[in-house]
Amino acid sequence: MERIKPRTLSGFMELLPAKQAKMEKMMQILRDTYGLYGFAALDTPVIEDAQILLAKGGGETEKQIYRFQKGDSDLAMRFDLTVPLAKYVALHYNDLAFPFRRYQISKVYRGERAQRGRFREFYQADIDIIGDGKLDIMNEAEIPAIIYKVFRGFGLQRFQIRVNNRKILNGFYAMMELAEKSGDIMRSVDKLDKIGAEKVSAILTNDCGLTDEQAAEILKFIAITGSNEEVIAALEGYAGRNETFDLGLSELKAVTANLAAFGVPESNFAVDLTIARGLDYYTGTVYETTLLDHPEIGSVCSGGRYDDLAGYYTEKELPGVGISIGLTRLFYVLDEQGLLNPELPSAPADALVLPMTQEPGAAISLAEQLRAAGIRVQFYAEQKKFKQKMSYADKLGVPYAVLLGEDEIAQGKCSVKDMRSGEQVTVTAEEAAQIIKNGLSSTGPIILEK
Amino acid sequence: MERIKPRTLSGFMELLPAKQAKMEKMMQILRDTYGLYGFAALDTPVIEDAQILLAKGGGETEKQIYRFQKGDSDLAMRFDLTVPLAKYVALHYNDLAFPFRRYQISKVYRGERAQRGRFREFYQADIDIIGDGKLDIMNEAEIPAIIYKVFRGFGLQRFQIRVNNRKILNGFYAMMELAEKSGDIMRSVDKLDKIGAEKVSAILTNDCGLTDEQAAEILKFIAITGSNEEVIAALEGYAGRNETFDLGLSELKAVTANLAAFGVPESNFAVDLTIARGLDYYTGTVYETTLLDHPEIGSVCSGGRYDDLAGYYTEKELPGVGISIGLTRLFYVLDEQGLLNPELPSAPADALVLPMTQEPGAAISLAEQLRAAGIRVQFYAEQKKFKQKMSYADKLGVPYAVLLGEDEIAQGKCSVKDMRSGEQVTVTAEEAAQIIKNGLSSTGPIILEK
Repeated sequence: MERIKPRTLSGFMELLPAKQAKMEKMMQILRDTYGLYGFAALDTPVIEDAQILLAKGGGETEKQIYRFQKGDSDLAMRFDLTVPLAKYVALHYNDLAFPFRRYQISKVYRGERAQRGRFREFYQADIDIIGDGKLDIMNEAEIPAIIYKVFRGFGLQRFQIRVNNRKILNGFYAMMELAEKSGDIMRSVDKLDKIGAEKVSAILTNDCGLTDEQAAEILKFIAITGSNEEVIAALEGYAGRNETFDLGLSELKAVTANLAAFGVPESNFAVDLTIARGLDYYTGTVYETTLLDHPEIGSVCSGGRYDDLAGYYTEKELPGVGISIGLTRLFYVLDEQGLLNPELPSAPADALVLPMTQEPGAAISLAEQLRAAGIRVQFYAEQKKFKQKMSYADKLGVPYAVLLGEDEIAQGKCSVKDMRSGEQVTVTAEEAAQIIKNGLSSTGPIILEK
Repeated sequence: MERIKPRTLSGFMELLPAKQAKMEKMMQILRDTYGLYGFAALDTPVIEDAQILLAKGGGETEKQIYRFQKGDSDLAMRFDLTVPLAKYVALHYNDLAFPFRRYQISKVYRGERAQRGRFREFYQADIDIIGDGKLDIMNEAEIPAIIYKVFRGFGLQRFQIRVNNRKILNGFYAMMELAEKSGDIMRSVDKLDKIGAEKVSAILTNDCGLTDEQAAEILKFIAITGSNEEVIAALEGYAGRNETFDLGLSELKAVTANLAAFGVPESNFAVDLTIARGLDYYTGTVYETTLLDHPEIGSVCSGGRYDDLAGYYTEKELPGVGISIGLTRLFYVLDEQGLLNPELPSAPADALVLPMTQEPGAAISLAEQLRAAGIRVQFYAEQKKFKQKMSYADKLGVPYAVLLGEDEIAQGKCSVKDMRSGEQVTVTAEEAAQIIKNGLSSTGPIILEK
């Protein structure tokens, strides 16, 4: 037979089982946490009508999108989960209760230039809350609580949810009579972390045509830092001069006021006036999340408030707030940096049941008994030498092997071997289940901080 | 703004939240059950090199596959999970421990003619056990246990796992000296359920060129039914005349011998000599699963033993056994027939927390307290009239509303309203959590039998 060399396309993540187990765990934490906050799971098609996906158009998207004909149909693969959500809400408007809260953890597709750490197929883990005409500011206030729970669930403590409000920025530039240049200015200010204040100032004066005074005023403004109270106090100094600014400030106050009630410690939260998140889409609170010890990763969870989700499809006004985690990239970077906890059990089973007799019936029953106790059990049926069986258990990384020979069967017992310590005890099936469960409960977080 | 009418492509399932909740539950049961038997989760790309996916070629596949160019690449979307598995095992052979057990619950794509109940994007929920060179028969014996646990997990009792062995069929036709016609014969016999014995006999004599005696002999053979013991006893009557037959019979005996140890009742299992499952691929035990009260649905879980998983990609001999559930179609049919349990809670939250005061802090804390107890809570922030709030809770289908007004706050309590009974009690947060948990624990199965 002529053979074809197997390969996986570049830019497409395909994990070995042990890594996949960690990825599955992260997804389960996301599902559980999103579920805990009352978000409904959604699962829209990977393929949509190309006209619908590209309603907004735009250069990069059109270039990167996977688009093709099938029969007479002009099809495309989704490049994010927001456009399909907009279509979904517009299409099913009459069947949904608003505010509509949904999460979706799904793959999206972008035919980007192949590059290390860049993916063409990747998971996004999104939540959005969509209002019908209106959406209360408390929804924006709740988002940091959800981000906090997710990253705590991953095992992290040293991360920061950074929040700003676009109305504050827009209002500030309006009161400086720079509203028309606000896009350019925000793009420049966005580089502050990378190139420093001096160079940003140069760009503002040379490229954006600002006076030295204006540039200085802007840099002074975005340099406002401190505790939530301190930042808000400083912002109060600008109040009363622009309506949009004042509204943004009152929203920011509402978001920060209830952090403690939402269970978010101040140490995991910061108002950061440098954050803008794109230019048109967001209209209120914006979010970024950084790992304090790994600023080079950039934001691992971003989003914000928008006023018009589905204007391309419906005349209904559908404001919303949402965040997105680029899960595939996050996983890749954590793995590259050695931050995935190697101690986390990643074997497909908690125990490998090894029959040591010709007749497998007793071992099969034992396996079923352990499963009934909630233990993930692989029954090993191959006719191999003992050494090969143990070497399989090792390669699988299974934490416990359970051996059943004539002696054990005669005693109504089984032998449980702890594969890490090598310790072996002969006990009843019930005791075996207890030993294994106790051994498993001492598992750590997915992500290690170091 | 010019608007585009939102639509979802035909042949692509897109569920409303309450239905999606049921689908998610089915997926969770599949993940949990597959996990309990020591299968590793796998997640291969949706897009593969078209040459690799089409290595086997074949008419229907080539016609239905979504295939397209991107840059210089000839790409295609997977049409099943078996070909990507073959690629995966061939590619990662050195990194896997054999037997390699994996499950994958993922979408596959077939551009079939649009038709009611036919899907172009649909989930398959597969498990496979792959051996390196060899694979013990006990792996084939374990499969019915897994099927049994899955469908019991869905809430079903009245289903039957029907099992045959291709070696018995091939051996039987060989001993009748009809080996060369066995393909045609099996295709004809496969119609028995639909067209009856007389018509099958006519096809065998007229189209396949069998004598009346041969046709009668075949119909007599496949008519063998009864308990496992009875069928095996009848098959023993044919033993000793063909090696393949004898091997198949010994395999069938091994599969049936340990059913009780695997916890599969005889009532959910039957040896059925009419089952063949395609022609080339399967070489040993084959499986179908039918709902006893809904034979019109056909098999809801099928599979079998094969000898050569990845011959197109590697010279390694990789025998295996696997089953597949066409989850999207199963879900669609269950829904169509009204078998999805309407009593199953399908709201995105277990409780809706409604602040009845201007200041939301206390209600936010209460919501977090209930979440800490594992309850899925939506905090409702909109400034609406009480009636509108309750109507939202109704539309959402949330089982409990938790109200927090001045009175409750003053007492350190909250009011829990059971949305079904209308009953309302004022209790502490801890008591509220307990009431809600108790109320939720009385939930039923996903599928109702009727």
